[in-house]
Amino acid sequence: MNIDASRLWRRLMAIADDGAIADGGVNRQALSAAEFAAWRRMLAWAQEASLEPCRDAAGNLFIILPGRDRQASPVLLGSHLDSQPTGGRFDGVYGVLAALEVLVCLRERAIQPPCDLIAVAWMNEEGSRFAPGMMGSAWFSGQRTLADIQACRDGDGVSVGQALQQQRRTFPRLALYPHRHPPAAYLEAHIEQGALLEQGDCPIGVVSGIQGKYTWQVEILGVSGHAGTVPMAARRDALRAFSAIAAALYRQVGQYDERVMLTIGWLTLAPNAPSVIPDKLCFRIDLRHPAGDDLTRLASLSETLIRQQAAPCEVRLTQLSQAAPNVFDPHLKALIAQEAQARGYASQTILSAAGHDARYLAAICPSAMIFIPCRAGVSHAVTEWAEPEHVAAGAAVLLGTVCRLLKLC
Amino acid sequence: MNIDASRLWRRLMAIADDGAIADGGVNRQALSAAEFAAWRRMLAWAQEASLEPCRDAAGNLFIILPGRDRQASPVLLGSHLDSQPTGGRFDGVYGVLAALEVLVCLRERAIQPPCDLIAVAWMNEEGSRFAPGMMGSAWFSGQRTLADIQACRDGDGVSVGQALQQQRRTFPRLALYPHRHPPAAYLEAHIEQGALLEQGDCPIGVVSGIQGKYTWQVEILGVSGHAGTVPMAARRDALRAFSAIAAALYRQVGQYDERVMLTIGWLTLAPNAPSVIPDKLCFRIDLRHPAGDDLTRLASLSETLIRQQAAPCEVRLTQLSQAAPNVFDPHLKALIAQEAQARGYASQTILSAAGHDARYLAAICPSAMIFIPCRAGVSHAVTEWAEPEHVAAGAAVLLGTVCRLLKLC
Repeated sequence: MNIDASRLWRRLMAIADDGAIADGGVNRQALSAAEFAAWRRMLAWAQEASLEPCRDAAGNLFIILPGRDRQASPVLLGSHLDSQPTGGRFDGVYGVLAALEVLVCLRERAIQPPCDLIAVAWMNEEGSRFAPGMMGSAWFSGQRTLADIQACRDGDGVSVGQALQQQRRTFPRLALYPHRHPPAAYLEAHIEQGALLEQGDCPIGVVSGIQGKYTWQVEILGVSGHAGTVPMAARRDALRAFSAIAAALYRQVGQYDERVMLTIGWLTLAPNAPSVIPDKLCFRIDLRHPAGDDLTRLASLSETLIRQQAAPCEVRLTQLSQAAPNVFDPHLKALIAQEAQARGYASQTILSAAGHDARYLAAICPSAMIFIPCRAGVSHAVTEWAEPEHVAAGAAVLLGTVCRLLKLC
Repeated sequence: MNIDASRLWRRLMAIADDGAIADGGVNRQALSAAEFAAWRRMLAWAQEASLEPCRDAAGNLFIILPGRDRQASPVLLGSHLDSQPTGGRFDGVYGVLAALEVLVCLRERAIQPPCDLIAVAWMNEEGSRFAPGMMGSAWFSGQRTLADIQACRDGDGVSVGQALQQQRRTFPRLALYPHRHPPAAYLEAHIEQGALLEQGDCPIGVVSGIQGKYTWQVEILGVSGHAGTVPMAARRDALRAFSAIAAALYRQVGQYDERVMLTIGWLTLAPNAPSVIPDKLCFRIDLRHPAGDDLTRLASLSETLIRQQAAPCEVRLTQLSQAAPNVFDPHLKALIAQEAQARGYASQTILSAAGHDARYLAAICPSAMIFIPCRAGVSHAVTEWAEPEHVAAGAAVLLGTVCRLLKLC
């Protein structure tokens, strides 16, 4: 049994129209009109295959292939439909469409699984519109409250709560997901977002786990003034303090070892005028490491450096998220490796450097991930690309792993 | 003979309504609706005193008290009406209203000067909407072409050319300034934007000259990518390169001596998303020093540091402006000092740390400036403040200096 590789590819390219930007890229941020358009497409495809769509209070989308026992714990397959503001055609959406393809395949062959088999698109994985990300899976797995998520606001001041109301108004007839039992298992297919599989000429990655990730927002408060009159020694220049903080972080944290990842990807400056000393700078830090002890040590070092280097400005430090490294389920990993081998695909064990919704799901059910290569390891960029044969291979291994898990073939 | 101090103060407070922002501040950027509103107010005051308003091709506003010989070289008094985005109620507008007050005073006493006496508001001194600033005086003094100025664009992509058209459409009946002769002299009153007069308890500063100023725009080009997957050693992170450049500039240029002024007041980051390695950062440098040799040396050092520290990113360096320090006219400075003494005001010689339109005028005619104190030296900020008695003192000295120069009393 195999998936329909050509249908899967066509759908991947079609859904890239929802939020399409220049140079083949995609801007489909969480709970945006572009994501609602992608939902409409998903609902049409679900209807075409007589699958049952529904949503939950946190804005997650579920498409259900009903099982023989509707009361049994379901198996979930999925990822997310939202993208970075200058994202590509594969990150997230590939895992959702591969999941849908598995369901459609089984439906076409009239194979009914023992439990509900569900394709899921989690709300706001990326965290670019509302930070931090993975809101839908964090709520679903009981690790964040709805009130906490709803209060987050985007750059225009729109809250997640308001955006979720907009989503409900846009899809008024969509049923509510019946939260009966925790899932029996969760599987997520995704592009690697690194170059190891490509370098190893290996179409399938069996993901061992996800590196840990801490994020902070830092606000530096100085005093504004005229660029030509305030002596350097009397200044409290927020940008000058930032450059000292950032240089220290890149040097002492960013060069800690070969596995650490340190990114300052977002900042705002005020008043942001060429002849005015800046009095306020906000920035976000993204710090990752696969080893829990190292990550804790680096997080503490980062906070120390920020406070040390901020003088003579004031600094306010807010930790946005703190995720320890995690390890995926051994049984599911073994099934993925067996399935890859059975289909003649080379596979290798690989650590996920990026965070995924599977991190949250792993806390409530056995979970695992399948990686496919992406060109030059590039993602979160309009040039993100995966080859059609790898797209097909990952979905085929996902289908086969589900069959092994549920003993369908 | 004296100015009407209470009228001058009332007008200063009234015109602060045009572009008023929170906490008593003013946002009246060049060629904005707020500046057009300030023009309307100026035109009404000119009409009330039977003065002749006109404009020129670069968007400068002139209000003329006609002289006995209309063909003689005129004397210009003025400054600018535009402000920083979070500016105050005195920077620029004080010099324009003090000039207007001098004209109104003479008109009320039916004193006709030998040549035209003109109050001028130069277009875009601040350079915050369109960089670099002092466009109107640079064009008037023949140091920039109209085509060069018109091509500059603001952050929304609007060009100076388009904004000037808007100005002409707003004031269709305003006559064109007759460019007959270069001015015989130029005088500009301004708040100090430093704290020396306040510290010296001295209401009048006789400005010796203006420190030199260089500005650049720097573009750092890196490569975007996922914050969790691209190894630190493989990154070309535009923000990381910026932090190295900025730290080197603040250390080696900003600490050169006690007189250097180094400001990075403006930057933009792309794509500016928390989990994406930045691939583009643009920033502007404002470098000032009163000594020409030191300034040249520091400019060259800055360019070297920027190129050295940018690796592994690419860098593009554009010099926006390059103004050597200048020295004002000795005769005019002597007249100002004599007039201050005659009126019983303490005065002191003072170097202008900030740039002013008088820098450009000094290239075509004898020029000088009168400073008054501002509270704690703060300007380019909503808390900018000057005391009513200092506002009156500066305008009275301006009137008396004009009378001495033109032998009116």
